Amino acid sequence: MAELVGNLLVAQSGGPTAVINASVAGVIQEAGKHECIEEIYGGLNGILGILNEELIDINEEKAKTIEGLKYTPAAGLGTCRYKIDFKKKPEQASKDMDRLFEVFKAHNIRFFFYAGGNDSQDTAHKIHEEAIKRGHEMRVIGVPKTIDNDLPHTDHCPGYGSVIKYNAATVMEVAFDVSSMATDDGSCCLIEVMGRAAGWIAAGTVLAKRLESDAPHIILMPEIPLNEAVFLAKVKETVASHKYCIVVVGEGLKNAAGEEIGADKSRLDAFGHPVLSGAAERLAEIIQGKINLKTRTVKLGYAQRAAEHYASLTDSQEAVACGEAAVKAAVSGQSGLMVKIVRTQTSPYKWTTGLQPLGDIANVEHFLPRDWVTEDGFLPNQKFIEYARPLIEGEVKVPTEGGLPKFAVLEKVRIDKQLPPHVK
Amino acid sequence: MAELVGNLLVAQSGGPTAVINASVAGVIQEAGKHECIEEIYGGLNGILGILNEELIDINEEKAKTIEGLKYTPAAGLGTCRYKIDFKKKPEQASKDMDRLFEVFKAHNIRFFFYAGGNDSQDTAHKIHEEAIKRGHEMRVIGVPKTIDNDLPHTDHCPGYGSVIKYNAATVMEVAFDVSSMATDDGSCCLIEVMGRAAGWIAAGTVLAKRLESDAPHIILMPEIPLNEAVFLAKVKETVASHKYCIVVVGEGLKNAAGEEIGADKSRLDAFGHPVLSGAAERLAEIIQGKINLKTRTVKLGYAQRAAEHYASLTDSQEAVACGEAAVKAAVSGQSGLMVKIVRTQTSPYKWTTGLQPLGDIANVEHFLPRDWVTEDGFLPNQKFIEYARPLIEGEVKVPTEGGLPKFAVLEKVRIDKQLPPHVK
Repeated sequence: MAELVGNLLVAQSGGPTAVINASVAGVIQEAGKHECIEEIYGGLNGILGILNEELIDINEEKAKTIEGLKYTPAAGLGTCRYKIDFKKKPEQASKDMDRLFEVFKAHNIRFFFYAGGNDSQDTAHKIHEEAIKRGHEMRVIGVPKTIDNDLPHTDHCPGYGSVIKYNAATVMEVAFDVSSMATDDGSCCLIEVMGRAAGWIAAGTVLAKRLESDAPHIILMPEIPLNEAVFLAKVKETVASHKYCIVVVGEGLKNAAGEEIGADKSRLDAFGHPVLSGAAERLAEIIQGKINLKTRTVKLGYAQRAAEHYASLTDSQEAVACGEAAVKAAVSGQSGLMVKIVRTQTSPYKWTTGLQPLGDIANVEHFLPRDWVTEDGFLPNQKFIEYARPLIEGEVKVPTEGGLPKFAVLEKVRIDKQLPPHVK
Repeated sequence: MAELVGNLLVAQSGGPTAVINASVAGVIQEAGKHECIEEIYGGLNGILGILNEELIDINEEKAKTIEGLKYTPAAGLGTCRYKIDFKKKPEQASKDMDRLFEVFKAHNIRFFFYAGGNDSQDTAHKIHEEAIKRGHEMRVIGVPKTIDNDLPHTDHCPGYGSVIKYNAATVMEVAFDVSSMATDDGSCCLIEVMGRAAGWIAAGTVLAKRLESDAPHIILMPEIPLNEAVFLAKVKETVASHKYCIVVVGEGLKNAAGEEIGADKSRLDAFGHPVLSGAAERLAEIIQGKINLKTRTVKLGYAQRAAEHYASLTDSQEAVACGEAAVKAAVSGQSGLMVKIVRTQTSPYKWTTGLQPLGDIANVEHFLPRDWVTEDGFLPNQKFIEYARPLIEGEVKVPTEGGLPKFAVLEKVRIDKQLPPHVK
């Protein structure tokens, strides 16, 4: 097989994380080592920008900016939630796919890397298949990214370690605050974290517990339906023992009927999922209404996935390695794969990267195993703790300026467009 | 005047901060240098614990634990919101005051330090006056503490620098996230911060702005009534320019009728103030309903005042100095005063401590001056920025264990009770 020579395109998709830029840095820095890669381009706002031929020249960026991506949250190249949906919008999807390949051909893109979660790996998979169908020789490798930790086949996802590190630290700090105010009246604080279907993020806050009596006292995961009476009894019991109770709730918590506790069904996002805003607020109403306990809420929202200032160094290093591994796989002639993290040992923690066919990843969600949660369903157990603990080790060092983070910002020098505008 | 010799009692009151323990460390470490101070006691849960004679022996604590209070959030001694209220509950207040002095006499308390905000300085003031009236020679010094920054006479309050540092970093990170997702559809993120009456906390997030175009784009402060139409126009204008808009809202934001936007009047706290839970949620409903813009919310709640992991070193050092200054004032024979921070120079920032009669402090609230805010009321101006900028400089170093903060925890060895139980 003759060596493939051409340009590289890297893009980011879906909800950002604290380390998705670290993966892009890994792709770029590794790409610089391979002669078969001629130009290095970044696609702005994922597929959406590529459709509009919005490409930037990474070689115009300073090396220190690329290095700085390792401590910069969010998607430096911009991201999108645009989906090429052959099922729901087949005509648009065909048009989009034609256009993507026009862009790939116009810019001689032979190496394509897409960092994202389930939907994005699905997109990468389709592009890989279309490249073969269309006879456009191109290596397509997915780079895993999601705070939700719900991709299958990888031990865990880059982005996950950082979100649970920040959330666990926050739970610990809030618990210090609430317990220091706790008098005989008792009080409860509900902390809402992300996680629509999978409870990985909520579960991760268990790492804040060093003693049995430490917070969080209850973790409500979306996989386990809420039994209101049992939950209220557990809150009362906790307050009786400790004078306070810290509850972590995943935003997608459901009742026995499978309805989301905090869903506002009148609001839908781009993928048609209901916007969830109020699991903690809803539970606070229930607690105050039914057991008359002083209750406060915290909703971390986007802050948790962007919290670079307390990101996990382990997570960041793994994210970089995933980007590097993607490039190595592509230049060695592989395509249609996602990089995965393989745990080779838990204590002391050791890991390496591997590769998995994109077809095994796309649209498959990986949930918290039921036997990693205590029988009453209110806390993850030792199996989970052993799994999660190594992922939060170490702190990413973020430089500061005037007492605040100094993140890297790309110059984004545009590549001249070769094509007429995209007609949607 | 013969030198006063006896025991010291230090206690904490009101909502905790990231640095109220640093002030207690300052009191304790300074006290150790003065022979006139015999025993050093801590009162658990403020006045409430002192009424119940719940005192601990600080000399039983390890020196490294006391030093560790400088990087430990919340109230290490516990706190309370109990008020000795001669106006509303004169009988209970008289009984409580009698009891306090029984406790002071039983334990030969001659130096009393109370760290807290407005209500707590009021309590300290009453104790000072009662001590004179009752002929119990005792030095009473208030140590300022409040994230709200609403105490008069002091340049700013310990606790304030840390909360705005963390909040500004959070706004910066959330803005990176939201802007990286911003496409032509536009989006808005509302970040709710504390501040019931005063907008100091909300205003402080302006420090996240390095460029005119940076977030936060709009800051809604409780002192300035919301004009909904003007606000919505400003959001639309911001989204038109930047594709996204970050709004910071103080929890106590009011409409033109003076009603709190997010108040739930059915819930009252111990001081009879309505519990505020929903300014951001309420505004999100308005934005989505009236201009159909995708909107998300973040509610930092207790997390912001407990965020030791990104606390300001300047703030922490000032908090320690306030504790030390309180002890120095007391041993030099002064009483009935609160320590204040005096700014002697803004650039480069220089400060010292001073003293102010407690009577000048108690129950006086200090608001953000209107001429520190732009004419349209949506952002603090350069005067505020120059004031606030030095307060967030430097980071408190928190040791970690297993990737999470390792805070100090007091042993809390109890002093034997000398009195019968307190009858309320």
